[in-house]
Amino acid sequence: MGIGAMSMPHLTQGGGLQFHNSESPKVLFFDVNETLLDLTAMRESVGKVLGGREDLLPLWFTTMLQYSLVMTAGRQYEDFGIIGAATLQMVAANNGINLDEKSAKDAIVGPLRSLPPHPEVRDSLKNLKDAGYKMVSFTNSSNQGVKTQFENAGLLEFFDERLSVEDIGKYKPDADAYDWAARKMKVKKEECMLVAAHGWDIAGALWAGWRGAFISRPGAQLFPLAPKPELAEINLSLISEKLIALK
Amino acid sequence: MGIGAMSMPHLTQGGGLQFHNSESPKVLFFDVNETLLDLTAMRESVGKVLGGREDLLPLWFTTMLQYSLVMTAGRQYEDFGIIGAATLQMVAANNGINLDEKSAKDAIVGPLRSLPPHPEVRDSLKNLKDAGYKMVSFTNSSNQGVKTQFENAGLLEFFDERLSVEDIGKYKPDADAYDWAARKMKVKKEECMLVAAHGWDIAGALWAGWRGAFISRPGAQLFPLAPKPELAEINLSLISEKLIALK
Repeated sequence: MGIGAMSMPHLTQGGGLQFHNSESPKVLFFDVNETLLDLTAMRESVGKVLGGREDLLPLWFTTMLQYSLVMTAGRQYEDFGIIGAATLQMVAANNGINLDEKSAKDAIVGPLRSLPPHPEVRDSLKNLKDAGYKMVSFTNSSNQGVKTQFENAGLLEFFDERLSVEDIGKYKPDADAYDWAARKMKVKKEECMLVAAHGWDIAGALWAGWRGAFISRPGAQLFPLAPKPELAEINLSLISEKLIALK
Repeated sequence: MGIGAMSMPHLTQGGGLQFHNSESPKVLFFDVNETLLDLTAMRESVGKVLGGREDLLPLWFTTMLQYSLVMTAGRQYEDFGIIGAATLQMVAANNGINLDEKSAKDAIVGPLRSLPPHPEVRDSLKNLKDAGYKMVSFTNSSNQGVKTQFENAGLLEFFDERLSVEDIGKYKPDADAYDWAARKMKVKKEECMLVAAHGWDIAGALWAGWRGAFISRPGAQLFPLAPKPELAEINLSLISEKLIALK
């Protein structure tokens, strides 16, 4: 999986992205899965129920994201983990692998709740908090799910608030989800910044009038048809440095 | 890729699905890509620009569908072919393959417009039309795109109307798209039946109050968290027989 210059051909050499303005965002909203927590830890459990086909992990994860939006588009809602298990069954069946519902759930729900943080995450969050930022998690995981995730990853203490799309019943990047999150925090959309390692999440936030900081983790790409965020770095540490410089 | 019993564990043996009612639908809406036209014909051109990685085709196609909904969720719209090219660039970059915008577009837009029909499609459409069904195509492709597709595939003559989500600016399976299509044809939602080879399309149609007929082509799976359609067969020929029996 390519990261760095190759995977971000749209960024100017030397990180020549500019802040929209020199003001610090009033609230930093952090996506959770893959942004803060390392999803590769699921590779083993998911690969195992797929008969060793770890190469199918990106297809499964993309299918899960697709179907979370299929439900929102169809005015339905189900828990993110349940959608994950259902789509894992679909990917398995398409590849001649027999996978029952319970095995699919066991492969996802447990591991999803005990993902480790990426190595730089704890220090970066601490530095941002010490610099005076108001910090909120904003995830497609359920309320109970993200609480357990943060407990297991030791991240609970860094956030002033935890927001889950469960409360509005629409998955990111639905524009209503960002509007709702800003309203919950009593700030204007232009005072919000999303930090995320998903091109679709950054796209949704910018289209909703938010500012954005993209973490270009392996396998993460900005969406070429969306506006570019003012920050894009390969890890949270580099992003936190630039944000702290604004304070 | 598994089809048949293995890929549809939720269907009873022997096709034991029941019609919701014995009345024939007033309008049959047909999805186009993969339902009527054979997408495997794109495997060659897409595989070629992906450096021979034809195994990435399902990941690319799923990413394209995901991002079509990302745009709808974000209240944006772009041509389906353009989204296809942008997401092909993303998949390429994630796999260490350099792919410029023009090459991505060339690999998709031309081949997408000259897909051949699946072998049973022409005869099945003719039989349905002869039986008196009102038939409408309803696609995520653009208006010009589907016209060219049908001209090239020799399917133009079978449809009373061609509907594209381009006119409403929201991709299927957004509930508004199905509502709009029913209104365009001046029929009630329960008088509509969608024929499609995508689990997400069938799910969206049923959630919008339509009836559904699923073609379980290789790589196609019903969504386990959606209601089951009254018809599910491995090709359009078998579906057309059951529909003609209702007339």
